[in-house]
Amino acid sequence: MKESEESKKYSRRDMLKMSLLTGAGVAVSASGIGGAVAAMGGLGSKKATAEPHEDDDAISFYGKHQAGIITPQQTYLYVASFTLLTDDKKAVISLFKKWTEMAAAMSAGSVNETYGNDWLPPSDTGEAVDLSAARLTMTFGFGPTFFEKNGKDRFGIASKKPKHLQDIPPMPRDDLQEPFVGGDVCIQVCADDQQVAFHAIRNFIKSSVGKAELKWMQSGFISGKDGMTPRNLFGFKDGTANAASTNTRAHDQIIWANQGEPDWMQGGSYMACRKIKMFLEVWDRSSLKDQEDTFGRKKDSGAPYGKAKEHDKVNLSQLPKTSHTAIAKGSGQQIYRRAYSYTDGVDTKTGYVDAGLMFIAYQKNPTQQFLPMLLMLSKQDKLNEYTKHIGSAMFACPKGIKKGSYIGKELLEA
Amino acid sequence: MKESEESKKYSRRDMLKMSLLTGAGVAVSASGIGGAVAAMGGLGSKKATAEPHEDDDAISFYGKHQAGIITPQQTYLYVASFTLLTDDKKAVISLFKKWTEMAAAMSAGSVNETYGNDWLPPSDTGEAVDLSAARLTMTFGFGPTFFEKNGKDRFGIASKKPKHLQDIPPMPRDDLQEPFVGGDVCIQVCADDQQVAFHAIRNFIKSSVGKAELKWMQSGFISGKDGMTPRNLFGFKDGTANAASTNTRAHDQIIWANQGEPDWMQGGSYMACRKIKMFLEVWDRSSLKDQEDTFGRKKDSGAPYGKAKEHDKVNLSQLPKTSHTAIAKGSGQQIYRRAYSYTDGVDTKTGYVDAGLMFIAYQKNPTQQFLPMLLMLSKQDKLNEYTKHIGSAMFACPKGIKKGSYIGKELLEA
Repeated sequence: MKESEESKKYSRRDMLKMSLLTGAGVAVSASGIGGAVAAMGGLGSKKATAEPHEDDDAISFYGKHQAGIITPQQTYLYVASFTLLTDDKKAVISLFKKWTEMAAAMSAGSVNETYGNDWLPPSDTGEAVDLSAARLTMTFGFGPTFFEKNGKDRFGIASKKPKHLQDIPPMPRDDLQEPFVGGDVCIQVCADDQQVAFHAIRNFIKSSVGKAELKWMQSGFISGKDGMTPRNLFGFKDGTANAASTNTRAHDQIIWANQGEPDWMQGGSYMACRKIKMFLEVWDRSSLKDQEDTFGRKKDSGAPYGKAKEHDKVNLSQLPKTSHTAIAKGSGQQIYRRAYSYTDGVDTKTGYVDAGLMFIAYQKNPTQQFLPMLLMLSKQDKLNEYTKHIGSAMFACPKGIKKGSYIGKELLEA
Repeated sequence: MKESEESKKYSRRDMLKMSLLTGAGVAVSASGIGGAVAAMGGLGSKKATAEPHEDDDAISFYGKHQAGIITPQQTYLYVASFTLLTDDKKAVISLFKKWTEMAAAMSAGSVNETYGNDWLPPSDTGEAVDLSAARLTMTFGFGPTFFEKNGKDRFGIASKKPKHLQDIPPMPRDDLQEPFVGGDVCIQVCADDQQVAFHAIRNFIKSSVGKAELKWMQSGFISGKDGMTPRNLFGFKDGTANAASTNTRAHDQIIWANQGEPDWMQGGSYMACRKIKMFLEVWDRSSLKDQEDTFGRKKDSGAPYGKAKEHDKVNLSQLPKTSHTAIAKGSGQQIYRRAYSYTDGVDTKTGYVDAGLMFIAYQKNPTQQFLPMLLMLSKQDKLNEYTKHIGSAMFACPKGIKKGSYIGKELLEA
């Protein structure tokens, strides 16, 4: 969020200092976030008299669409899926209100921490107190089991289930490993600083005690400078086919759900997650030709076969038939990729590095866009020789949240 | 490594382009690294006519001491321990020569990749080709089993074992979990970009096939801006007691091994590793007072009890007796910390976040410095209520490597 040149920038640290001096809570009232932060309660929290502004690397949590979807991709990811432990709608509303307030405050780079009472646990875990907002975004989604679980409409919202929300059907080569499947609620946290991202996910977990528990969580990273397409761990550019982050028309065509969906979902999007293990050692022993034939693109430039540049138009007749690009493109569908690489230490079974891609893609209609593409890829993609899908989930991410509202309000309040 | 203002900076990408245009290998002859890179062989690699300079965020691999010890701490870590699969000294020499050449080239931000032959595997894995050096450092160390394993002096170097190299003895509360213990050879890789760090460790692994295998590997992160002490996942500053990175006298007193050690170790240092699991959920439920009593420092400022600022002198009589700072300080010993936080997803046993600290410390004499301190901490540290040590290793890191030499040369050549 851009501030005028003259306005002073306040970091989490400045705000914390201010609160220590005044004995008051953190507030960012210029942007309307102060109310939310004050509402978080905590230790003697009340509105400060000073009116600090947000960090200049802050991205607003509020808006027409949720942040973290068309936001230019940050370098770090934590994505976590939760199981709700309660059938009590009020408890869920209370949790989602709290998460909303926290998300709004953290996205502005503030912390709700005054260290005011020695005898209570600090309300914030504290590891991000010196750090800026680092373009932190938090994107919320609901899984099929949020609407109906074991045949039970726990929260009386089954009739509001969006049209295309379903678990990703079993694919021919799936090797899914519990607990890395599905979940009631998902939070995708992204930032340009891993500690800022972890701080956010940790505080969401901390505040959910008794109401929700963590089912699975994955961290990830990318690196790319000057707007270049980042490379995955196979050394190839990943995300070349994405619409530009400013191409509003393409976003409407590809990403944002609209008519035919319940109101809360119009302007939202479906998030598809696949944890894809990559056999790096096998890949590294394959020839350059084999690697390029696998993607249908040149490794160095990212150009499709027969072309010179990364973004040159793909000509299907020039690509190896089973190449990843040929099959994905051949499906005639578009999705919006937002994938991150991961490393999970050593695979104790094989002694190899346990690594891969936490694939995340957004689309307005997975039934038409993502699922047919995934099925074709699962059957024919030459990349399957080097990968295994070990995690899977689909979530419906509601439209953007307005100030004063909270995540899922239209769903949970009749 | 600073270049003069006028000299053009070349990225990995520039160098790769150049090599594609000229059909020649990557070379950085101005700094003498060209020879090493050219010596790596690979695909039609030979010295380019142009003379590009190194990235301005490059740290030389060569020097009096190994880089990555007193180097101001980068934000990302991969530390990996290897088991040597061979008893053949020549094979080990060949591996260490290769690793040296790779480390020198990668630290300069270059890649040994020309994509010259379609029918061979690329010599570099490629995911860092667009990226800068990102202050990449690679620090090598030898474990006790490198000198003698199961009573066998495999490489005829047992007599050159440094004075204080031994496995860290069992500590009262240890809960070590194989394979996260020891190892023959260790590489600590640090960079300001996780993808650059992973690229390095991966290419070391790739080049070791048949000669060494990965035993354990851990990634980690810190965040701290403007030279502030980074905070650990308990929200406290970690590393306050470290000597300043410019305090040469302190480094000689604390870090660098000297007289009484074999020649190859003089100017080297002992690296102690402890993987310390932190029970974040338990910690987050404890009061601010309890947290501060545990460290003997204020959470916000990092100041020791009774003082106002982080770097104010600790007065032992003002600290809780079992606080971490009181016991560490009370040992009368100093070490040089270089720890990183880690997160390993969800602990499937407890459902909690699996996270903690990859503790790394350097010292000239672990028998006198680190081990007594660790023993006292293991017995009395109040922090033990919230942590568990699950990994352990000690390595002897040789002095710095000269251009033209290689890691461990003085050890392996009589």
